[in-house]
Amino acid sequence: MHFADSLTLATREKSPVCVGLDPQLGKLPASLPKTPEGVLTFCKGIIDATKGIAGSVKPQMAYFEVLGWQGMKVFWDVCDYAKKQGLLVIADGKRNDIGSTCEAYADAYLSASSPIDALTVSPYLGSDGIKPFMERASRNDKGIFVLVKTSNPSSGELQDLPVGDETVHEHMAQLVESWGAQQLGTETSLSLVGAVVGATYPEELKYLRTLMPHIPILIPGYGAQGGKAEDVKFGFIPDGTGAIVVAARSVIFASNKDDWQDAAKAAAEKMAAEIRAVL
Amino acid sequence: MHFADSLTLATREKSPVCVGLDPQLGKLPASLPKTPEGVLTFCKGIIDATKGIAGSVKPQMAYFEVLGWQGMKVFWDVCDYAKKQGLLVIADGKRNDIGSTCEAYADAYLSASSPIDALTVSPYLGSDGIKPFMERASRNDKGIFVLVKTSNPSSGELQDLPVGDETVHEHMAQLVESWGAQQLGTETSLSLVGAVVGATYPEELKYLRTLMPHIPILIPGYGAQGGKAEDVKFGFIPDGTGAIVVAARSVIFASNKDDWQDAAKAAAEKMAAEIRAVL
Repeated sequence: MHFADSLTLATREKSPVCVGLDPQLGKLPASLPKTPEGVLTFCKGIIDATKGIAGSVKPQMAYFEVLGWQGMKVFWDVCDYAKKQGLLVIADGKRNDIGSTCEAYADAYLSASSPIDALTVSPYLGSDGIKPFMERASRNDKGIFVLVKTSNPSSGELQDLPVGDETVHEHMAQLVESWGAQQLGTETSLSLVGAVVGATYPEELKYLRTLMPHIPILIPGYGAQGGKAEDVKFGFIPDGTGAIVVAARSVIFASNKDDWQDAAKAAAEKMAAEIRAVL
Repeated sequence: MHFADSLTLATREKSPVCVGLDPQLGKLPASLPKTPEGVLTFCKGIIDATKGIAGSVKPQMAYFEVLGWQGMKVFWDVCDYAKKQGLLVIADGKRNDIGSTCEAYADAYLSASSPIDALTVSPYLGSDGIKPFMERASRNDKGIFVLVKTSNPSSGELQDLPVGDETVHEHMAQLVESWGAQQLGTETSLSLVGAVVGATYPEELKYLRTLMPHIPILIPGYGAQGGKAEDVKFGFIPDGTGAIVVAARSVIFASNKDDWQDAAKAAAEKMAAEIRAVL
C-alpha cells in the first residue's frame, strides 16, 4: 500500500499519535538493566503498551547508535517488532548525502524488505540528497519526512533567514510540495514525501500547511518540548488526517517505576484525546 | 592533542590527502567476497596501502549502515584499525539533531574512547544541532566538519539562496567561523570546528576561505567528481595547512584486479604530488 494511504489508515483506525522511542539509558525504568538488552525490553514494552492507541512509532537512531553496533542490532529488532505489531515505523535518522552515498542510505532503510516505513531526512544538500530516497520510497511503498521548520529554539538561525519576501523554511516547504505533488496515494491526496514542522511554532505550522497541501506533516515537540493540541491542529487537513504528532519523553518516561507501561499507555491515551478534541 | 594541531601535524608529516572509504559492495576487488567481512578486508587493505601518504581517512557511514548492524560492527573495526595505523579518522555521517538526541550522537562518535577524531555534521537545525558536538569535541580533543557548500550539482537549491547581499552558504560560513573562533589549537590558528566545501566550486572555496580564516576545510569532490589541484589550492592557508582533500573512488577503486592495493597507493601518491605542486 502507498505510504500516504497507510498513514491515513493508521490515523483513522488508531490516532495521529506517534510514540517517539528515545531510549536514553539513564532514564530507563529502574527495574531494567542499562544495557542494549534493557533498551530492547523497554522499547518492546512501550510498543505493547501503546500499540492500540498510536498509529506509528518513531525510533530515534541516535539512542541506538550510541550503544555501538550492539545498539544498531537492537534498533533493527525494535523496528521488526513494531512492524509485526501493526505499527508504522518512522526511523528518525535525519540522514542526508548525495549520489551513490544517498542511494546507500536509501537502500539501508527504505529497501523492500526493511521493516521501516519512512525515514526522516535533512535537506541542506538540495534535491540530490532527496531524490534517491524518493525513488526508493516510490518503488517500495515507503515514505520520507524532510526537515522544514524544526522545533528547537535555534531553528531560525538558518530556517528563518529572509529570502526575498519569504523565509528559507517557506522556500523549503515549496520545494517539498513540488517534490511530493507527483507522488500521491490512491485513497488520499497526500504524498509519500512528508515534512517535519515543530509543534513549538504554531503560526508557522498553519502557514506551512497552506504551502504544502499534499504533504503529510510529522509534528515533533508535543508535551515535554511545550507543544499543545491547540498548536498542532492546523497541521491537519480538513478530514482530520495529514499529520502525525510525536511525543517521546512525556509518554515513554511517564513513570520509571513498575507501572511504566501503564503510565505510558495512559499518557498516550490522554494525548490522543487532547488532539481528538481539537480536530 | 587539540584536533586542529593533530590535523596540521598529519598534513605536514604526510599530506592533505584524505582517503574516502566508500566501500560499495559492487565495486570491491573481484577477489574479495561481497560481504561485511569483504568490506573489512578491503578497508584494511586500502588503509595499509595509503597510510604512508594520506594524513587521514574518511569512512562514509552509509556504506556500512547499508549492511545492517553487521556493517556497523565493521565500521567500528575499520575506525579502530585506521586509528592504530596512525591515521586521523573522520567519520562521514552528516549527523544532525537537537538537545539530548544531539548529545547522544556526540557521545556515539566523539567520546573520549572513540577511535574517531572528527565527524561531519549537517547544519539545518542551527546551533542547537552543533553546540553539543563542539562541547564533546572540545572536551575530548575531537573535531567536527560542518556542511557549508557541498560538491553536488543541486547544492545551490538551498545553499545559494540570496539572503540580503550574501548567500545562505556565505551566511553559514560566518556562523561556522563565529562558532569556531574560540576553539583554536595551541600550535595553529585553526579551530576544532571545520567546514565542508566542495572542490567542484573553486570560486566559492576561494571566497569562503576569507570568510572562515580559522576553519579547517574538508574538500570533497576531487577526482571522480571533477575537482582538480588548481581548484582546491585556495582552500589552504598560506603555510600550506588548513585543508584536507578527499578522494574516494579515484583512489580506492583505482583497480579491481589483484593490484588494487598498489593501484590505490599510486593514485594517492599522484594526488598528493598534484596538490603539493600547486601549494
